[in-house]
Amino acid sequence: MSEVYAARRARLRERCYAAGSASALVSRRVNVRYLAGVAPRDAVLLLGREEDLLLCGAPLTGRDAEAHLDEALRVHPLPGAGGDTAVAAADLAAAQGADSLAVEEHHLTVARHRAIRSVAPRLLLADLDRSVEQLRLVKDEEEISCMRVGAEIADQALGELLESILVGRTERHLALELERRLIDHGADGPAFATSVATGPNAGRRGHHPTDRRVEEGDFLSVCLGATYRGYRCEIGRTFVIGTSPADWQIELYDLVFAAQRAGRQALLPGTAYRDVDRAGRQMLDSAGYTEGLPPLMGHGIGLEIDEDPQLAPAAMGKLDACVPVTVEPGVHLPGRGGVRIDDTLVVRPEADGGPELLTITTKELLAL
Amino acid sequence: MSEVYAARRARLRERCYAAGSASALVSRRVNVRYLAGVAPRDAVLLLGREEDLLLCGAPLTGRDAEAHLDEALRVHPLPGAGGDTAVAAADLAAAQGADSLAVEEHHLTVARHRAIRSVAPRLLLADLDRSVEQLRLVKDEEEISCMRVGAEIADQALGELLESILVGRTERHLALELERRLIDHGADGPAFATSVATGPNAGRRGHHPTDRRVEEGDFLSVCLGATYRGYRCEIGRTFVIGTSPADWQIELYDLVFAAQRAGRQALLPGTAYRDVDRAGRQMLDSAGYTEGLPPLMGHGIGLEIDEDPQLAPAAMGKLDACVPVTVEPGVHLPGRGGVRIDDTLVVRPEADGGPELLTITTKELLAL
Repeated sequence: MSEVYAARRARLRERCYAAGSASALVSRRVNVRYLAGVAPRDAVLLLGREEDLLLCGAPLTGRDAEAHLDEALRVHPLPGAGGDTAVAAADLAAAQGADSLAVEEHHLTVARHRAIRSVAPRLLLADLDRSVEQLRLVKDEEEISCMRVGAEIADQALGELLESILVGRTERHLALELERRLIDHGADGPAFATSVATGPNAGRRGHHPTDRRVEEGDFLSVCLGATYRGYRCEIGRTFVIGTSPADWQIELYDLVFAAQRAGRQALLPGTAYRDVDRAGRQMLDSAGYTEGLPPLMGHGIGLEIDEDPQLAPAAMGKLDACVPVTVEPGVHLPGRGGVRIDDTLVVRPEADGGPELLTITTKELLAL
Repeated sequence: MSEVYAARRARLRERCYAAGSASALVSRRVNVRYLAGVAPRDAVLLLGREEDLLLCGAPLTGRDAEAHLDEALRVHPLPGAGGDTAVAAADLAAAQGADSLAVEEHHLTVARHRAIRSVAPRLLLADLDRSVEQLRLVKDEEEISCMRVGAEIADQALGELLESILVGRTERHLALELERRLIDHGADGPAFATSVATGPNAGRRGHHPTDRRVEEGDFLSVCLGATYRGYRCEIGRTFVIGTSPADWQIELYDLVFAAQRAGRQALLPGTAYRDVDRAGRQMLDSAGYTEGLPPLMGHGIGLEIDEDPQLAPAAMGKLDACVPVTVEPGVHLPGRGGVRIDDTLVVRPEADGGPELLTITTKELLAL
């Protein structure tokens, strides 16, 4: 695996050279992890002229020490506790004779940036910008297989919940039980705070579970995800409780289902981000649901639960193959509840069968 | 409650005036919450010349809308989605005629700072520094009572666990069960990732629970905390599994207990932070445990699990009354395990009975 990280660093180095910087300082933790395989707290990565260094506040221990098998990356623990690793990295870059250093201005604070300037006043500080985030956009098959395992875990946890008695249980307890099941099935942990929403809460994006209990006739919407080896996935489903859904429930469900399908079908290399959004949005729009629509129909997913690209009306750019995204339209009717359907998929060319669905739990309207 | 937040903002405003800034921009989320009572994602607080504004990406909903009863603080949702609230705040400050604006340079990124400069080029940007963190150090009785409830919840969760069968269960399952019990007893959630460490892992600070099972003869150390109305607490205890602890276990336990007691007894107004650290540290030191000691004996606690002050060898400053802190010495012997004992207390003057212990679970060495 260590060659993977070295290759990622080589790609970043090329970008830096092209932009005129011989050295780069990566401070965002998720970016450090992507490039180094490990990311101890407060560690930063220096891509130097002579070598790559991982600067840590303390020597690697436990899982990090086991995971670090990368001989091309030297670990450099700071001698004293409490030192700033970014400042130490800039100091080292200057000592190695670098004349410029690209830093992550979207992450580094003004105070740290000033401390770097004062320790290495002759170093020209450039902006690395979101270069690492851009590298992270297209995933390799190893990354995608981690996401596939995470999606299987989430599907299992959800499937088991559906086999249990739901009426009378609170949103909070159902959410906790789902998170326990994620861990039982081997997840590192939940990918985000599990959302369980019943009755009038159903269909609300990011609803925080309350003490409301599941009742007959409710919509029940659930959104959960597993983290597996650092990679996240997301699945959302809506069910009805009781024997027969009401007409308005069936109608609303069918509409959101159709919008979500349209979004999924648009996931092909070369499709503009905004066109994926539009595919789903215009279906909801033309059914009269213009108010309260989510600001986006989906987003990239990987080491972070919400990363580039945004599938939103004003987004610029086009999908590439091997970009995992969510498609998650929803409609919420105040006081009545609503429907959200959410999948994680990987963009694949039509020749390879089109978009690969990672979260395979059925999207039929189940009456539980 | 809304007067509480207005009074906090008034204190911050005084500090700003004294430092020469008529306006301040608070962007750190926990600081926004402290000053406004609510902190929607990406919201910032502008203390302006004319009025205080909470700038949000979207109108307040759900719990935030219910919690916001503060008439002295106007909520200002940005018109378009995706706008930067900090940039919009600077724009407003300039429009209100401010000539300087103090910002949180330890939180604001270089990129956001630059965007602020470019939208309001005539505004002099000063550094608010950690002014809000300093205001947060001394807690009022309302804050302390939230922490007291949180500590009761953590004590209950821990007490119930001790009544159950432990041998054969994994660290991960015990940690999950503790977190479930925290929620059952009314916590918003865990205050941090619950740590359960058995056998050779016991006594390691911040140990991530593994699949190791509890065995006869083990040390078992547990560290957990509840969040209640945003306020956090922390408790850590070490037990032995089986009928009779070994001599080395009793000896080590007694030593850590004595060090922790010395640290607790030092918690009086006017004591230097470093002297609290020294009180515990020198006891471990003189018993020969110089290696592998934690870098600090405790820290402040409140809206964050780890906030000012640090009770560490090089810390500057003295304790005030009504500052909640942890006291948490520990010794870990590689390959054998160790002991940590951790309490949350509030500094109180001797006339009021001295330090108030919030986490009251017994610190006798229990054999379970």
